[in-house]
Amino acid sequence: MNNTAAGRRLILASGSPRRHDILCTAGIPHEIRVADADESLPAGIAPSDAVEMLSARKASAVLRTAAADEIILAADTVVSLNGVILGKPLDEDDARAMLRAQSGNAQEVYTGITITDGHTTVTTHEKTIVRMRTIHEDEIEDYIASGDPMDKAGAYGYQSLAGVFVAGIEGDYFNVVGLPLCRVSTILREQFDFRPQWNRR
Amino acid sequence: MNNTAAGRRLILASGSPRRHDILCTAGIPHEIRVADADESLPAGIAPSDAVEMLSARKASAVLRTAAADEIILAADTVVSLNGVILGKPLDEDDARAMLRAQSGNAQEVYTGITITDGHTTVTTHEKTIVRMRTIHEDEIEDYIASGDPMDKAGAYGYQSLAGVFVAGIEGDYFNVVGLPLCRVSTILREQFDFRPQWNRR
Repeated sequence: MNNTAAGRRLILASGSPRRHDILCTAGIPHEIRVADADESLPAGIAPSDAVEMLSARKASAVLRTAAADEIILAADTVVSLNGVILGKPLDEDDARAMLRAQSGNAQEVYTGITITDGHTTVTTHEKTIVRMRTIHEDEIEDYIASGDPMDKAGAYGYQSLAGVFVAGIEGDYFNVVGLPLCRVSTILREQFDFRPQWNRR
Repeated sequence: MNNTAAGRRLILASGSPRRHDILCTAGIPHEIRVADADESLPAGIAPSDAVEMLSARKASAVLRTAAADEIILAADTVVSLNGVILGKPLDEDDARAMLRAQSGNAQEVYTGITITDGHTTVTTHEKTIVRMRTIHEDEIEDYIASGDPMDKAGAYGYQSLAGVFVAGIEGDYFNVVGLPLCRVSTILREQFDFRPQWNRR
């Protein structure tokens, strides 16, 4: 995808294909560049602080080698259930336990974002509540057998098979997928004078 | 896509590629079959009644020629702003007026669904609230120039460029796209013994 006429370039500091897809769908030109960042966290850190801290580290790691006209966007997403952060399941038993715990409950999805060009840096987070319907045992087994849960935080993908389990959400849908699109595009426009490129389709 | 092992076949009575995509993403096997239905509505009908009525007519039209093992799923979606139903824009001026009216406001998206096999018939609707951020005049002009608004009820597509305008929603995301996935899959399971097919990916 081409970059903006204004000449600034947006760098997505994430290897997530889902974040790339969100930016593409919204017509926001970008390149992908990923650098290693320390993913360790202080014990007992709140989910909102954790995702902000990790997004800031990911952005810093890419900023070190960035050109002067480049804007770096980094993000980190976690699922929190009753205050406990759910990562990717370790194995099928772990996925089973996570899905049982989420059945009939509301969870919170936090995505932290950092946008920086080395002069201006914005770090913030967005929260979306996700309400699951009751998930029956046979559905849990079928879902685990599909292989879908294993690479996903909280052991489910709203934008894939597990969409049938989600009764509703409160907040930005794209935040659940991994990038709070409305917030990101507003910050890019207002703080960095960077806009989507909407060519005639 | 293949149909279920149980032998019942689901027929999507809609030509909407977005509804087809939702069922495919959720691993719900189906065929597409569309028949003409009367789309006229009584004056002053409430949005929730309108979408139920139209979904029932669409389902009936396809049911007439259906086989005994077939389950028909029909749907109709409208956007309602301050009680007024917004259809597809007539022209660019109409799209401009709709987008200005939605800027900074909450709207309601109603999808009516009818699922029937000729013996059991379920007709219901699902509502999702969509909150738009302020949409600036230059964004409205850029969005109209993209051509994206013209084939969409309410003159915007959440799942395309206009995702940047949506601050958040309350309810089922897929309902906004055109099919309340959680509700549909629950009715199919509980009333029609019809389940997704989740093969290993």
